[in-house]
Amino acid sequence: QTVNESKFGKGLQFVAADSSFSLKFSTRFQLLYQGGNTPTTGNWDDRFLIRRARLKFDGFAFSPKLEYKIEFGLSNSDIGSDVPDLTNNADNIILDAVAKWHLTPNLQLWVGQTKLPGNRERVVSSQKLQFVDRSLLNSRFNLDRDAGLQLRHEHQLGPVVLREIGSISMGEGRDITVNNTGGYDYTGRFEILPFGAFEGDGDYVGSDMEREQTPKLALATSFDYNSNTARAQGQLGDFLTERRSLRTWFVDAMFKYRGFSAMGEYADRKAPDGPVVLRDELGDVTETFVTGTALNLQAGYLLPSNWEVAGRYTDFNPTAVTGIRQQDQYTLGVSKYIVGHSLKVQSDVTLIQEANREDRTQFRLQMELAL
Amino acid sequence: QTVNESKFGKGLQFVAADSSFSLKFSTRFQLLYQGGNTPTTGNWDDRFLIRRARLKFDGFAFSPKLEYKIEFGLSNSDIGSDVPDLTNNADNIILDAVAKWHLTPNLQLWVGQTKLPGNRERVVSSQKLQFVDRSLLNSRFNLDRDAGLQLRHEHQLGPVVLREIGSISMGEGRDITVNNTGGYDYTGRFEILPFGAFEGDGDYVGSDMEREQTPKLALATSFDYNSNTARAQGQLGDFLTERRSLRTWFVDAMFKYRGFSAMGEYADRKAPDGPVVLRDELGDVTETFVTGTALNLQAGYLLPSNWEVAGRYTDFNPTAVTGIRQQDQYTLGVSKYIVGHSLKVQSDVTLIQEANREDRTQFRLQMELAL
Amino acid sequence: QTVNESKFGKGLQFVAADSSFSLKFSTRFQLLYQGGNTPTTGNWDDRFLIRRARLKFDGFAFSPKLEYKIEFGLSNSDIGSDVPDLTNNADNIILDAVAKWHLTPNLQLWVGQTKLPGNRERVVSSQKLQFVDRSLLNSRFNLDRDAGLQLRHEHQLGPVVLREIGSISMGEGRDITVNNTGGYDYTGRFEILPFGAFEGDGDYVGSDMEREQTPKLALATSFDYNSNTARAQGQLGDFLTERRSLRTWFVDAMFKYRGFSAMGEYADRKAPDGPVVLRDELGDVTETFVTGTALNLQAGYLLPSNWEVAGRYTDFNPTAVTGIRQQDQYTLGVSKYIVGHSLKVQSDVTLIQEANREDRTQFRLQMELAL
Repeated sequence: QTVNESKFGKGLQFVAADSSFSLKFSTRFQLLYQGGNTPTTGNWDDRFLIRRARLKFDGFAFSPKLEYKIEFGLSNSDIGSDVPDLTNNADNIILDAVAKWHLTPNLQLWVGQTKLPGNRERVVSSQKLQFVDRSLLNSRFNLDRDAGLQLRHEHQLGPVVLREIGSISMGEGRDITVNNTGGYDYTGRFEILPFGAFEGDGDYVGSDMEREQTPKLALATSFDYNSNTARAQGQLGDFLTERRSLRTWFVDAMFKYRGFSAMGEYADRKAPDGPVVLRDELGDVTETFVTGTALNLQAGYLLPSNWEVAGRYTDFNPTAVTGIRQQDQYTLGVSKYIVGHSLKVQSDVTLIQEANREDRTQFRLQMELAL
Repeated sequence: QTVNESKFGKGLQFVAADSSFSLKFSTRFQLLYQGGNTPTTGNWDDRFLIRRARLKFDGFAFSPKLEYKIEFGLSNSDIGSDVPDLTNNADNIILDAVAKWHLTPNLQLWVGQTKLPGNRERVVSSQKLQFVDRSLLNSRFNLDRDAGLQLRHEHQLGPVVLREIGSISMGEGRDITVNNTGGYDYTGRFEILPFGAFEGDGDYVGSDMEREQTPKLALATSFDYNSNTARAQGQLGDFLTERRSLRTWFVDAMFKYRGFSAMGEYADRKAPDGPVVLRDELGDVTETFVTGTALNLQAGYLLPSNWEVAGRYTDFNPTAVTGIRQQDQYTLGVSKYIVGHSLKVQSDVTLIQEANREDRTQFRLQMELAL
Repeated sequence: QTVNESKFGKGLQFVAADSSFSLKFSTRFQLLYQGGNTPTTGNWDDRFLIRRARLKFDGFAFSPKLEYKIEFGLSNSDIGSDVPDLTNNADNIILDAVAKWHLTPNLQLWVGQTKLPGNRERVVSSQKLQFVDRSLLNSRFNLDRDAGLQLRHEHQLGPVVLREIGSISMGEGRDITVNNTGGYDYTGRFEILPFGAFEGDGDYVGSDMEREQTPKLALATSFDYNSNTARAQGQLGDFLTERRSLRTWFVDAMFKYRGFSAMGEYADRKAPDGPVVLRDELGDVTETFVTGTALNLQAGYLLPSNWEVAGRYTDFNPTAVTGIRQQDQYTLGVSKYIVGHSLKVQSDVTLIQEANREDRTQFRLQMELAL
């Protein structure tokens, strides 16, 4: 095989001599220190762990029209299964295993397991975040990965880039080995980039690494209908004793200009038949789907020295009947990007305000190393 | 290192500059959709999953006379452990880890964990099957993988190729970390290829990919004696409260000619001391070894367009005393081999007739992508 | 990328064309047969398993001053979790994930998860042992791997090499995903090599592979203070219902000269507040930290034919109050190093004398294959 120009951050790249396939291999890990004062005890409680460790293989197979991607998670945080009965008592090592067929230059069919076209923050790689990790909006409402089909179309109207994505998936999330419970999950997403494409696909990268010379904007909305799901958060969470159909709307935006970047997301999830499944004798909720709304706003400025200061505000408003606590988070992040998102140190401090609980702060410091 | 001619389907190949070792790396995955009507409810029940995802490393170490192979399974279907006490509470990620020492040009000693020389269908790679997956004969009676020694001899008498394989293994299957329960497992296999070797080792490949220009036939028989095993199927299945010795005979054949291929297998497993271990108060069997006979016949024709139509008939006749249901399966398969077994889409429909149950049909559609 | 001179035992080596990163990939496995007479039954009980199977990635990232190492364990023996609640119900696949920053030519800062600077025998790779596996001293008292920081300094005074290593880590061992219980772990180590550095870093390699032409000696002492740990052996073992601070001293030495090698270690672990945590109604210990002392002495001679004969004596003296049995082990090892520690067959026989138990012997035979 001939070897492409491998470069730090771009993985080891191979192309077969007869151009019959290509393979890019990369590996990465995140070292995370996380600590905070526990209000009840006043103690500083902390942990230090390998937050993520991944092996990634992608390229084309037989024809450049057929791309593939396989990504394995190997850290405990990534692979623990909450639902061993449904995952063959095995760890969930496979993150992505997907074939991408270019039907036309503008139209792709994806088959396999990968991220659904949900909120922007989720689709941004965990390697390319502006903060140490994603926001509370994401952890409550994101669509995560699922197994199924995606049809992805992109076209241009003058300078304006438009994307339409439709997806049908099983609805219970990744690495399920048993029969589908209830119905499927249907997702639609529409994106518009009025000032054209971002440099380096920057509409799905945290921070303005490319320092856009002209303002760039991406606006998008996603709608998801998860029919008769059994999990508290659709693709994630505990399996509950009853099923509900969940309707989720996302609206999100990314803006970048000369080192400044801003991202906003709004999520709204409803269970038309009511989220609560089970109450105990006292009437307290013991099983419920997670519904409600959330807002996440964040912005940062990348200094010429590749230091960045960024702020984030997240508001989570669960449906009252669920009994889940309302929560606000204020985050201040400071990052040093040594080689973009491939070698960086990020830190953030978050003030967490939960209803009927004392405020608390959380500190995180993370190093990312990605070949 | 110099790099060999890598080619799609042959993996990434490396040979050290000083020829002190070689390494072929490949990865593959199978995307499986499976559905069927559940007779009791009339519902269409289905699943979509990553059926297999593998990493494979093989080559020679130090001398071409010493080959090695390591294969890891990473999909939940491959790695879930039914017997956590006996596998150190860990997933069974290792499929093969074996050293193959060429004692003479015709004689090899294998040490480690790999497939036993049992029925042909089992030894054919899951990548190279004629249907979406192996037959019921195989799932009931195959010898699977085990840890031990194999002595493998091959020689020729005129055009006739003969192979003799003997094996001693621990008898309880792969990835067991505790002491051997009961005795060992002894396997012998004898193969005869009266019209010479198949093109591309086709006697262990589903479908006549090479379109043999002269008729090719392989006949074989295996005998296995698993002394005092504790698992219901020898190397597989639940650990039972008593042990039995199991005797298994296989007779199998493969025939190929100009795109036509046929494979047949017959299996007969006995537990001389009786398969049933435990009955409940009503006399119903609650624990039993799986014994009886099975027959599998399949044939297909590969069209010049690389579409194939194939049929399969499987009959499973468990020993009456076990109380296991007798079962017949009729399968029709349609496959499109885009690049042989390395990039293909396969589908099959199976009519399942179980004793004292309503007939049901199962539909499967699978894509294979293997570097 | 340009490709370095890969060589058997040195892995596949890659350096990016722009020298922006390097990657060395290697894989290895150990096939272990282990058997022994069980005194109570008189039976020969044995097992055959893949003792270790590893994937290893190391090199530098962006600058030669920043090295990284990632090592994954894949055999059940390596990855089973005893404490699923604390490891996110996942297997412990990650052995090492560490970044090594060369602050100056003599000073390195390590961040991440890797072996602590404890006893020499533990730090020697499991690939490079003189016997089939490490001694009883190690299995009772070693510090294993942990997540944290290490500062490592090396300097020379004339021919004498000196090393000082300090470490702060979380104290509960590898792959913990929850908050730190109790305090941190503090480790210090001091090494002196009075006759200069060993060939091929031989002070951390079993057997005198390099056949030192002049006598080489390494002397070292480590002290570890694991504050308020919850695990019976600090970084290893069950989580107990109470916490103790553990103080551990190690003194160790390695000597090599013309094929002869000797290694000695002494360990002393105390729990100042008493090791015993829980007793049953009869006063028998049901939960205790493992404290006491141990001595390990071993020596071997590597013949010109690369056969080696070696002997080992290990004495384990647990604190009387713990009720753990005192134990002595006498081991005789015979090894054939075909290509150093990369391709070898090792065997050993151990006589095990436990207090108040019948003596027993254990036999082991192991093959190592490491690219």
